[in-house]
Amino acid sequence: MTTLLALDTATEACSVALLHNGQVFSRYAVIPRLHAQQILPMINDVLAEAGIAKTALDAIAFGRGPGAFTGLRIAVGVVQGLAFALDIPVLPVSNLAAIAQRAYREQGAQQVAVAIDARMDEVYWGCYRLVEGEMCLQGIEAVLPPEQAQLPRQAEGAWFAAGTGWQAYAQRLVVSTHAQDPHLLPHAEDVLTLAQGMWQRGEAIAAQAAQPIYLRDQVATPKHTQ
Amino acid sequence: MTTLLALDTATEACSVALLHNGQVFSRYAVIPRLHAQQILPMINDVLAEAGIAKTALDAIAFGRGPGAFTGLRIAVGVVQGLAFALDIPVLPVSNLAAIAQRAYREQGAQQVAVAIDARMDEVYWGCYRLVEGEMCLQGIEAVLPPEQAQLPRQAEGAWFAAGTGWQAYAQRLVVSTHAQDPHLLPHAEDVLTLAQGMWQRGEAIAAQAAQPIYLRDQVATPKHTQ
Repeated sequence: MTTLLALDTATEACSVALLHNGQVFSRYAVIPRLHAQQILPMINDVLAEAGIAKTALDAIAFGRGPGAFTGLRIAVGVVQGLAFALDIPVLPVSNLAAIAQRAYREQGAQQVAVAIDARMDEVYWGCYRLVEGEMCLQGIEAVLPPEQAQLPRQAEGAWFAAGTGWQAYAQRLVVSTHAQDPHLLPHAEDVLTLAQGMWQRGEAIAAQAAQPIYLRDQVATPKHTQ
Repeated sequence: MTTLLALDTATEACSVALLHNGQVFSRYAVIPRLHAQQILPMINDVLAEAGIAKTALDAIAFGRGPGAFTGLRIAVGVVQGLAFALDIPVLPVSNLAAIAQRAYREQGAQQVAVAIDARMDEVYWGCYRLVEGEMCLQGIEAVLPPEQAQLPRQAEGAWFAAGTGWQAYAQRLVVSTHAQDPHLLPHAEDVLTLAQGMWQRGEAIAAQAAQPIYLRDQVATPKHTQ
């Protein structure tokens, strides 16, 4: 049976999840600015709980964005180092999809419109529909002004609103939804769920090919650095 | 004999160096924005050249800053992942010291005033003196306006000026030096040299304790991210 590790540091939340022998072990904490210090101990914890060595891992999944610049860099760096050292591939999972998957897990939502606050008067936006237990992207992921967010064409039925964008831009997101949870943050458990499908479909990639997805074409690095 | 890997991605340069059986194997390239894609292949190359497995490593050294925000995050993340997976400690090396060490290696400089362009009208500044083959910090490392840069008290003899700050702020750095190389970038070979002394002195730390040193108290993350 497959043994997969998943981690996510794309937002103020920091989490890891481990699938081993069909069981899931996880850790989750909202710890802004402490991701880099806490991610390795959290990985250690779940490995210890499952009673396995790092060498038992088949692949490592991670929230590849969109999300916070620093958090994504931490995730990609740590995952690259781990996967390279262990000679295993990686599975990059959308953070928008992970949030949609969470809305299904916690609220039973079948159709989810995800908006993450992207600052600069924009949201990261993606619409997902449940297909065989897995949230599938409808259309494309995008970064856009809240006013431009739309449901997919021919969207029928009830849509659930998830993600911090629904709080930050409550007045400006005019998409019609029937319920919402604007506090939903990505969780490695859902990254893990989505990664299992990718693993079975052979979508794992080499560690060196791992990269963050910012959605913005040009991500400005802080001006005071090179 | 000790087997050490060193890497540096703190500036537009990207480099790795490996010490094994007293021999040094290295790669160096100036590849802005490609560090995350190239660092693992470069590590692979030096390991292959030395004919050893990753598991032969005793510790991993890295340029811990000061330097570019993104580059430092890449280095720390990859090093954390590698060291954690291999169960070995890490050796954080100053990038200012690495540049001073380079000035000694290439120019025979014994006293080096290092200035890295820190943008925002400031430089990262540190003064180093050679002691038994190793560049030692005189005073403290700091980020400051070029006009405030000074040599250590009771500085005698000739000082060599190294680092990009000497080009960016040529008119504003009023410190007296006898020669300069404003194009000197940090190189993992020098990170490796300095790391050997640290290793022998027992200064290695756990992977989870690795962190970038920005020198600025508050490093602003890009405004559009969280």
